[in-house]
Amino acid sequence: MTKAVEIGGLKIGGGNPVRVESMLKIPLSDKEKCYEQCAYLAKLGCELVRAAFPSVTLTEDLAWLAKNSPIPLMADIHFDASLAVAALEAGVPSIRINPGNMARGIADVVACARERRAVIRIGANSGSLNSAQLKRAGGVRSDALAAAAEEQLKILLDQGFDDVILSAKSTSAPETVRANSLLALKYPDLPFHIGITESGFGRDGLIKSASGLALLLAQGIGDTIRISLSEAPEEEVRAGYSLLKALELRHRGGALISCPTCGRKRIDVMGLAALVSPHLEDLPDGMTVAVMGCEVNGPGEARDADFGIAGSRGGAVIFRKGRVLREVPLERAAEFLLQAAQEDF
Amino acid sequence: MTKAVEIGGLKIGGGNPVRVESMLKIPLSDKEKCYEQCAYLAKLGCELVRAAFPSVTLTEDLAWLAKNSPIPLMADIHFDASLAVAALEAGVPSIRINPGNMARGIADVVACARERRAVIRIGANSGSLNSAQLKRAGGVRSDALAAAAEEQLKILLDQGFDDVILSAKSTSAPETVRANSLLALKYPDLPFHIGITESGFGRDGLIKSASGLALLLAQGIGDTIRISLSEAPEEEVRAGYSLLKALELRHRGGALISCPTCGRKRIDVMGLAALVSPHLEDLPDGMTVAVMGCEVNGPGEARDADFGIAGSRGGAVIFRKGRVLREVPLERAAEFLLQAAQEDF
Repeated sequence: MTKAVEIGGLKIGGGNPVRVESMLKIPLSDKEKCYEQCAYLAKLGCELVRAAFPSVTLTEDLAWLAKNSPIPLMADIHFDASLAVAALEAGVPSIRINPGNMARGIADVVACARERRAVIRIGANSGSLNSAQLKRAGGVRSDALAAAAEEQLKILLDQGFDDVILSAKSTSAPETVRANSLLALKYPDLPFHIGITESGFGRDGLIKSASGLALLLAQGIGDTIRISLSEAPEEEVRAGYSLLKALELRHRGGALISCPTCGRKRIDVMGLAALVSPHLEDLPDGMTVAVMGCEVNGPGEARDADFGIAGSRGGAVIFRKGRVLREVPLERAAEFLLQAAQEDF
Repeated sequence: MTKAVEIGGLKIGGGNPVRVESMLKIPLSDKEKCYEQCAYLAKLGCELVRAAFPSVTLTEDLAWLAKNSPIPLMADIHFDASLAVAALEAGVPSIRINPGNMARGIADVVACARERRAVIRIGANSGSLNSAQLKRAGGVRSDALAAAAEEQLKILLDQGFDDVILSAKSTSAPETVRANSLLALKYPDLPFHIGITESGFGRDGLIKSASGLALLLAQGIGDTIRISLSEAPEEEVRAGYSLLKALELRHRGGALISCPTCGRKRIDVMGLAALVSPHLEDLPDGMTVAVMGCEVNGPGEARDADFGIAGSRGGAVIFRKGRVLREVPLERAAEFLLQAAQEDF
C-alpha cells in the first residue's frame, strides 16, 4: 500500500478511496468565476482542483481562491521557482512542478513546502521529453517517461522531502501504463496521480482515458485520477466517477443498466435511458436502475438492478429486483422509475 | 494463440486483427432497412453483424439479407433448435445460441453447422444465471458465468464440434473480466468474443465497456469485440475502433490529440476539436492531428502528431511534426488543418 499524503484535509493514498480531480479552465484573474467552477466541481464530487499559476501578478487571486474554494487547490507552475514559493506562501496546500526545470531555486521551494506541510506533485509529461532522455532509454518512450519522472523525484528525495505525489503522463495509453507500472515497481510506497494527457474529445477521449487508467487501477496503481478532456471540467469529474464505478472501486449516485436493444424491443430504450440518465447523480450511491426493451427478458435479465423499466404491451412495467411492481403509461415511465427509486431509499 | 475460425470469409482469432462487431437494431421484417444498416456499418469498418432471429416467419428475410449484406451475419437465436437450423439453411454463416437451452435438437443444429462449415458462438450471460449455477460457484457470479459458458461449450465439444467462438458477458466489467480470464486459462486455443452486456448509455456505457474490454485485450483475450450501447449500432462500431486505437492494437482513420486546456489557452480548443473530429474517419489510418491551446507549448508538446493547430496571437498556426508551417485565420484553422493532412498522404 502507498503512504498517505494530506492536501488541505484531503487524504490521498494509503488505502483511501481513489480521488477524483479536475483542473480549472478559467484564468485565475477571473477569480469569481474560478470560485463558481470550484463550487460546482465540489458538488459533483471533485476533491482536488488544479489551477495554472503562470504569473506572480495573480498571487492575490490565487490566495483568495485558496481561502474560499470548498476543495483544496493545486497550483500548476512551470520553470519559475519563485512562483512556486509565492503559491505556497499564498496558502495553496499543493503545487505541481517539474523540479528539474527550476534550477537552484528548488531548495527554497522545498523549504517552503516543508514549513507549510504542503504536498508537491511531480508531473512528467511525454511531450516534454528531450532527445537525450529518449536516447538513454533506447528510444522507448515509456521508459524515457518513467526515467524523467524519476529524475524529478530524486531532486526532492535528495533534499529529504517525500510528501510527494508522482505522475507520468503521455498521450498514449499503453505508454502511460508502462511508464507508471515501471515507476510503481520502484516506488511502491509513493502515491500516484494518473491520467492520460491530451486524451482528446468526446468518445475518443473517454475511451482512451478509461482504457489506460483501468489498466493501472486494476493493478492497484493510482491514488488520484484526472480524466483529461477537451471539455468542461465537470465532464472530467463525471467521467472520473463513471470509471471508478465501472471498475467497482467507488460509487457515486446511481448506475444505469440498459439493454443494447434488438428486434424484440417494444420501447424506445435510448430515449428512456436518455431521460433517466441525468437523474442518476441524485440517486443514492451504488443504486442501479435498468431500462430494458421488452418485458419478456427485461425484468429477469436485469434482476440485479434495484429498479427498472421494461417495455410491455400496455406501455411499460416498473420492476424491483426482477419483480414487476406495476404497469405504467410509457410516457410517464421514466418519471415513475425515478420516483420509485427515490422513495425506496 | 487462439485458432482461427472463418465466418463468410472473415477470419477471427489466430493472430488476425481484433474484429469489430455490432448488432442490427431493426427487426428483420424490415429487410431493406436492415440492408441499409449493414451497408452503413460495413462502411465504418464493422466486420460481422448479429441479427435477432426470433421467428421462422422471418426466414426469407434472413436468407435475403444473408445473401445481400456486404458483411457476414450472425443469427441470434434463443431456445428453438429448429430456428437455428432454419437460419443455417437460409445461408447464414454463423449463429449465436445457448446450446443448453435447446434440449435434444442441438444434435441437428451441430450436424447442420458442420455440413455448412458454419461457426457457432456460445453466449453465456450473467442475466441468465440460475440459482443452482450460482450456488455451485459459491455465490461468485463471475465464476458461475464462466461455468455456465463452459457447460454450453461442452455440449458442442462432446459432439466433436469446435468451430466455436466463446463469449461470457455480464453487466459488470470486473465480473466479465474475471469470467473471461478463467475461461481463457482453460481454453487458450478458442477464439473469444468479448463485450460488456447492457453497458448503458453515453459516457457511462463507453467507459464501462472500454475499461472492461481493455483489461481483457491487454491480456491478449478477445478476438472479436462489441461495444454494446443503447445507441445506434454505428456508434458501437466507432467506439470499437476507438478502443482498439487507444490500445494501439488497430488503427482506422486519424486520431485526435487535443490539450485539456488551461489558463494559457488562446483559442476555443473544444470548438475546434469538435470541428475536426467528424473528419477523422476520412484521414489515413493511424494519422494523428492535434488541437492545442497555445503556440508556446502546443507545437512542442504535440510534436509527435503528424499535423496540428495551436492558437496564436494572429489566429492559429498549423504545424507538422512540431514545426510550424504557416499562420492562418482562426475561423479557417480546422479547414486548413484537414487540407494539410489530406494533401500530405
